Amino acid sequence: MDETVRRDWEIIHFENNDASTKDETIATEFPLTIMVNGTEFATMVCSPVNIQALLVGFLASEGVIRAYSEITSMDIDMEFGFAYIEIGRPLDSLEADHSKRFIGSCCGKSRQFYLKNDVKTAKTVMSKQIISARQCYDLMEKLHHASTHFKETGGVHNAALCCGNDILSIHTDIGRHNALDKIYGDILMNEISLKDKWIVFSGRVSSEVLLKISKIGIGILVSKSAPTDLALNLANDLGITVIGFVRDRKMNVYTHPQRIAEVKNTKQSQLSF
Amino acid sequence: MDETVRRDWEIIHFENNDASTKDETIATEFPLTIMVNGTEFATMVCSPVNIQALLVGFLASEGVIRAYSEITSMDIDMEFGFAYIEIGRPLDSLEADHSKRFIGSCCGKSRQFYLKNDVKTAKTVMSKQIISARQCYDLMEKLHHASTHFKETGGVHNAALCCGNDILSIHTDIGRHNALDKIYGDILMNEISLKDKWIVFSGRVSSEVLLKISKIGIGILVSKSAPTDLALNLANDLGITVIGFVRDRKMNVYTHPQRIAEVKNTKQSQLSF
Repeated sequence: MDETVRRDWEIIHFENNDASTKDETIATEFPLTIMVNGTEFATMVCSPVNIQALLVGFLASEGVIRAYSEITSMDIDMEFGFAYIEIGRPLDSLEADHSKRFIGSCCGKSRQFYLKNDVKTAKTVMSKQIISARQCYDLMEKLHHASTHFKETGGVHNAALCCGNDILSIHTDIGRHNALDKIYGDILMNEISLKDKWIVFSGRVSSEVLLKISKIGIGILVSKSAPTDLALNLANDLGITVIGFVRDRKMNVYTHPQRIAEVKNTKQSQLSF
Repeated sequence: MDETVRRDWEIIHFENNDASTKDETIATEFPLTIMVNGTEFATMVCSPVNIQALLVGFLASEGVIRAYSEITSMDIDMEFGFAYIEIGRPLDSLEADHSKRFIGSCCGKSRQFYLKNDVKTAKTVMSKQIISARQCYDLMEKLHHASTHFKETGGVHNAALCCGNDILSIHTDIGRHNALDKIYGDILMNEISLKDKWIVFSGRVSSEVLLKISKIGIGILVSKSAPTDLALNLANDLGITVIGFVRDRKMNVYTHPQRIAEVKNTKQSQLSF
């Protein structure tokens, strides 16, 4: 694993009242400012690894690009934490307003969106893919085994792009959203087809996480943690299957259960949907 | 506990391959847009409880106010998720730039700051208070027992303002930063003295969390979770004692151990500081 995402720190460790000094591994946190066409677009903190994928995924998620080819140049200054991106057209005013509140109509799905940018970039996922409970358990175990950072530092999140029973790529970051942006960047840079892919994720499923899944265009999100109600309302509207609390070969299916093999194969009468 | 921060959701629960439907309690997530003097200042998502404390703490943390009395009016529209704040002077350009990158000099402490706003609002904490390991363990247990939301929903964070062995107030939010802003709001609204107070917290200690502790003016942060290196560098510079991984009567002291009673009472030779 890349040593830039963690470092040692001398601590005083207490067990009851007994104190001793030791070295502990902690996660690094790196401030990164993104300049688009010479204008300051955003400042984030991240784990300083796979920065290129992070930038591509973040800019796509924010609606600045739709394809990797729209970026005409990308220079990353790791010493000072600046990324200089050029896209082949001026940023429009909507993009400059990417974090402004969206005021929707009073009825229908648009009530769920709260940022202008999401109205433009979030999309309904029509995927017909099917996953089994066993695949969810096995992939979560694989994510856990493959991601040694969390066990060592306790301070990072992991996201994996999966196909069937296999993990295609794993990204790690101190920010939940960044780990997903790195996955999105991979998908765009390598033009990966999404029709048989799902994402397995260590973090909580907030509305922001769910919207990112929708922007990427993934139909199934498998998480170790809990969702919020706003995330689930958005998942219902956007056609995304949210599976949470995948632990110890148990899990909860919150939305769109038609993509779970066992549910599809069970008679409706046995489960009162 | 306030029912607005959680609700029931019908799920399909799997244990191995056996599925059953049941109701699960999930955390609510509420988008809130903050207008200051008629201008859109920020949009956040939060748990919709103690909104007034959240707004006061957030605006102080962002450097818009220094005292609660600077707010001349505050109207909260819970139906549409808007807060209309008036302060008795125009917002200046630095405030409008609150999320802009700070470019510090090339040496010294300012290198650690990465947002302009933090340069103005973060402050060194000179507190001489002392806490014992036992107090840390006991307060973390009290926080755990008092905060039933996390056990039920798995999706919220808790922060408590403490004095000696007592919890004075607990705030819960889906956002780690919001829970701390609610504490900050309480302190400002009630003009609470900070010289004998500490904060006990369920969440990870990122740079943003650490900067908030410094802005509040608290000298000791006791967390159940892990810190990042940037947070610890800032804690070293700003004079804050960071205690992490407080679990099962164990804990790690990362910075400024002179405020831990057992360390203060131990001969230097026994611990190789």
